[in-house]
Amino acid sequence: MSRPKPLSGFPEFTPEGRIVEQFVLDRLRETFELHGFASIETRAVEPLDRLAKQGEIDKEVYAVQRLHADPSTRAELGLHFDLTVPFARYVLENAHRLNFPFRRYQIQKVWRGERPQEGRYREFTQADIDIVDVNALAAHHDVELPLVTLAALERLHLDLGLPPVLMRVNNRLLSEGFYRGLEIQDPAAVLRQVDKLDKIGPARVLGLLVDDAQLTRAQAEACVELAQISSADESFVDRVRALGVHHDQLDQGLELLAEVVRIARAYVPGRLVADLKIARGLDYYTGTVYETELVGYEASGSISSGGRYDALASDGRTSYPGVGLSIGVTRLLAPLLAKGLLRASRPVPTAVLVAVDTEETRADAVAVAEQLRSRGISCEVAPKADKFGRQIRYADRRSIPYVWFPAADGGEVKDIRSGDQFPADPALWTPPAVDLRPTVSSNP
Amino acid sequence: MSRPKPLSGFPEFTPEGRIVEQFVLDRLRETFELHGFASIETRAVEPLDRLAKQGEIDKEVYAVQRLHADPSTRAELGLHFDLTVPFARYVLENAHRLNFPFRRYQIQKVWRGERPQEGRYREFTQADIDIVDVNALAAHHDVELPLVTLAALERLHLDLGLPPVLMRVNNRLLSEGFYRGLEIQDPAAVLRQVDKLDKIGPARVLGLLVDDAQLTRAQAEACVELAQISSADESFVDRVRALGVHHDQLDQGLELLAEVVRIARAYVPGRLVADLKIARGLDYYTGTVYETELVGYEASGSISSGGRYDALASDGRTSYPGVGLSIGVTRLLAPLLAKGLLRASRPVPTAVLVAVDTEETRADAVAVAEQLRSRGISCEVAPKADKFGRQIRYADRRSIPYVWFPAADGGEVKDIRSGDQFPADPALWTPPAVDLRPTVSSNP
Repeated sequence: MSRPKPLSGFPEFTPEGRIVEQFVLDRLRETFELHGFASIETRAVEPLDRLAKQGEIDKEVYAVQRLHADPSTRAELGLHFDLTVPFARYVLENAHRLNFPFRRYQIQKVWRGERPQEGRYREFTQADIDIVDVNALAAHHDVELPLVTLAALERLHLDLGLPPVLMRVNNRLLSEGFYRGLEIQDPAAVLRQVDKLDKIGPARVLGLLVDDAQLTRAQAEACVELAQISSADESFVDRVRALGVHHDQLDQGLELLAEVVRIARAYVPGRLVADLKIARGLDYYTGTVYETELVGYEASGSISSGGRYDALASDGRTSYPGVGLSIGVTRLLAPLLAKGLLRASRPVPTAVLVAVDTEETRADAVAVAEQLRSRGISCEVAPKADKFGRQIRYADRRSIPYVWFPAADGGEVKDIRSGDQFPADPALWTPPAVDLRPTVSSNP
Repeated sequence: MSRPKPLSGFPEFTPEGRIVEQFVLDRLRETFELHGFASIETRAVEPLDRLAKQGEIDKEVYAVQRLHADPSTRAELGLHFDLTVPFARYVLENAHRLNFPFRRYQIQKVWRGERPQEGRYREFTQADIDIVDVNALAAHHDVELPLVTLAALERLHLDLGLPPVLMRVNNRLLSEGFYRGLEIQDPAAVLRQVDKLDKIGPARVLGLLVDDAQLTRAQAEACVELAQISSADESFVDRVRALGVHHDQLDQGLELLAEVVRIARAYVPGRLVADLKIARGLDYYTGTVYETELVGYEASGSISSGGRYDALASDGRTSYPGVGLSIGVTRLLAPLLAKGLLRASRPVPTAVLVAVDTEETRADAVAVAEQLRSRGISCEVAPKADKFGRQIRYADRRSIPYVWFPAADGGEVKDIRSGDQFPADPALWTPPAVDLRPTVSSNP
């Protein structure tokens, strides 16, 4: 069999790339758990009728069927395309044994049956956090969720050298209240056009609002003015007020959004702005909406999005409102890894290679390795009894920092970077903390 | 929508069960990394023609196809049913950038399109370790792999209270050499019958060997005698010798298996036996084979199996021999979790609930929580300003051990189990290590 080719849209990492990914996933998990989010995993498949409910997205679903199923039967299952639909189903299925408000994080792969295309993934990892409650969910969770997400992304910026992020936040209540205050009948039609602002500019959006959405020129101008307001502090409130529109829902939205901005300025200064053009398409969001870009990589699109939904799930009697944010882990990492901008200090966990001089003494090398492992030091025993020079080259090719030469008195350990070699006791010696595990850094 | 029903064969855990699973996966990862195995993940899908190569198994493959694909096109992709086939493909695809011998671990879900049936999983997690080299792989890796696996399982026994395990090891060279020494022409036919020993007993195997496999009575008796030999030490060698059969391949197999048993006795006493009836079906194994049962749960079958394959992968010019073992994580955990035999001390990571007395002081509670988190203490801020008694009940329902009552001077912290309450500084106070994270234990 000749060398297999990668499948377009299904990124796989080298062992070194995987170390970077694990580093990221570990930090996301740790941040989520520090904030009291519990992990769940859901199965990869959902009934197709549940996946298809989201309207537009059903084109992108992968159907799953037993290979030897009767050819006349239709597939009933599909791979999940996000973690929100399965989470909603999990909440309904397990509501009787969950404690609400339920705070969960979920880090899993999702699949989309996209046509192959540059930058489009058909399999990718998402890391989601959501808080869901029964019948009503307190507004302060809309403030809390972006803080947790920004804390996670800030940690990647500080620990890994990922670019800083900017989260743009809006509130559907604010926009819709504003539109209603202008006596616009169909706020969704306006949102649909405003969503194009970055792509086509304010003049063309204005035209579409008049021509397609049937707004008066004055209404359309006010909507475009609103959409162009953004601020890193609460000053956006006065700028909206200056437009002279009044509506209860607008007031509610302004108050909520001001609170998000105010608290974010205190905890993650410079990382969050109110941006009143953010619409998040025609999703199921009903309140706060979030989008996040990597500074300097804005063209790559949002790496973390989400919002509030008044009915994440409902069983007819009880509804489960939620607020959630999703971090696109593959979207964040795959391009940087492909360009070599993120590096691990070595492609293996191994800190020490224990040398073997003849096969007869392999057991001694194994004994040294076991002593080191019992104290948390990752070791490999040389796979081949060989000249020490070759064993050092073996370690060097993998960037393993130390080679241990066993002897009756414990032996000697060599730092192959400096060439320093010194007697050591495998029951006592420990490498410097920085060498214990692979480190990860950006490589600009 | 009414409450959804679970899908048969797709187990999902409660948040508490997931904490147990994470505890297990973390320990597997740590053990594998201590032994110098690097993590990889492969995509969930492989080309169907590659999956179908394994002959028998293709009935169980889930085919994957875009929902809106042209109905006349045949599916080209399937979900992987193990981690060995994708690993072999990964090795071929990336051989030019891997260092050999390549030591990798891989913890992922796999899927099998089984008909629904008690105890059969259609989605389950496996944790695999393999060592693969180019053209030849040293025999000592056959000794190393079971030691790593047993170290991982022993850790689960000690840290979690899982039952101890017993690994049964044989070597195909030994059995086949023995058969050839008896001048049997078709060793595979003998293995096929011997594999049934546990199910149907020695008398019926003897009959099948004579009737179906066309052995002489003397040959068949020797084969059954061989299959009944097992020992926790090297004494099996003499018992085989006593059967008076001679063949080079038999000698090789005896020597290799004796080495496995000898080293395992030194490092994991009582956990590994030579058992000459182990055949591992008609898999691709060509040397050592492994099977592992949970002591007391033998009827549930093997929870960790594997062996050596002379050609894990081959591109025509280069072959990649390997040796590997797979731990069935779901098979190990799902029945114990379903029976309530494994418990987490709480279903949330949270160690401290920070109370909120009025919504006006929520920001003070957030500030306390942030101070605690900055020192690695998992916190939640109470979702609702409420009487302290209700907040304690909120914590109690989730088994969160501490409730913090913020005040201008830092506040007080209450251990809700003992009722002890004392003044504390959020910049200094730390819970006892045992309360910092959920602990996991068996619950017999």
